[in-house]
Amino acid sequence: MSKSVFYHAGCPVCVSAEQDIVDLIGASKVEIVHLGENKSRIPEAEKLGVKSVPALLTPNGNVLHLNFGASMADVKG
Amino acid sequence: MSKSVFYHAGCPVCVSAEQDIVDLIGASKVEIVHLGENKSRIPEAEKLGVKSVPALLTPNGNVLHLNFGASMADVKG
Repeated sequence: MSKSVFYHAGCPVCVSAEQDIVDLIGASKVEIVHLGENKSRIPEAEKLGVKSVPALLTPNGNVLHLNFGASMADVKG
Repeated sequence: MSKSVFYHAGCPVCVSAEQDIVDLIGASKVEIVHLGENKSRIPEAEKLGVKSVPALLTPNGNVLHLNFGASMADVKG
């Protein structure tokens, strides 16, 4: 099973959701990507279907958008 | 660690998210509650902070709202 990827942008709701996801799935099974600090990965996230953050990309390629935090437009600033 | 609870209402986006969550967390660690078929549990879900489905209640009491499927008002029908 490949890793999940948790995309976020550092907002409070993102950090809270991140902790929950890491607790549930296990830190070794999820990569955390901070799009605010790592804007070069925004195109990748958008291509994969991320429409808002926080979002979880599952190993099978589905994107689960979690508690609405910020739109990708906001992240791009 | 106590179980998570996944609340949904049978909509296509719910079923898709359910499969992802079960795959990620493990079937033994999440209880699935279909609020459309089990309306008596709607007050419990609302009290816990569920505002839309699908939603995941984590063992620490946080509610993660996933891909927006249906508002609780729609579920009550």
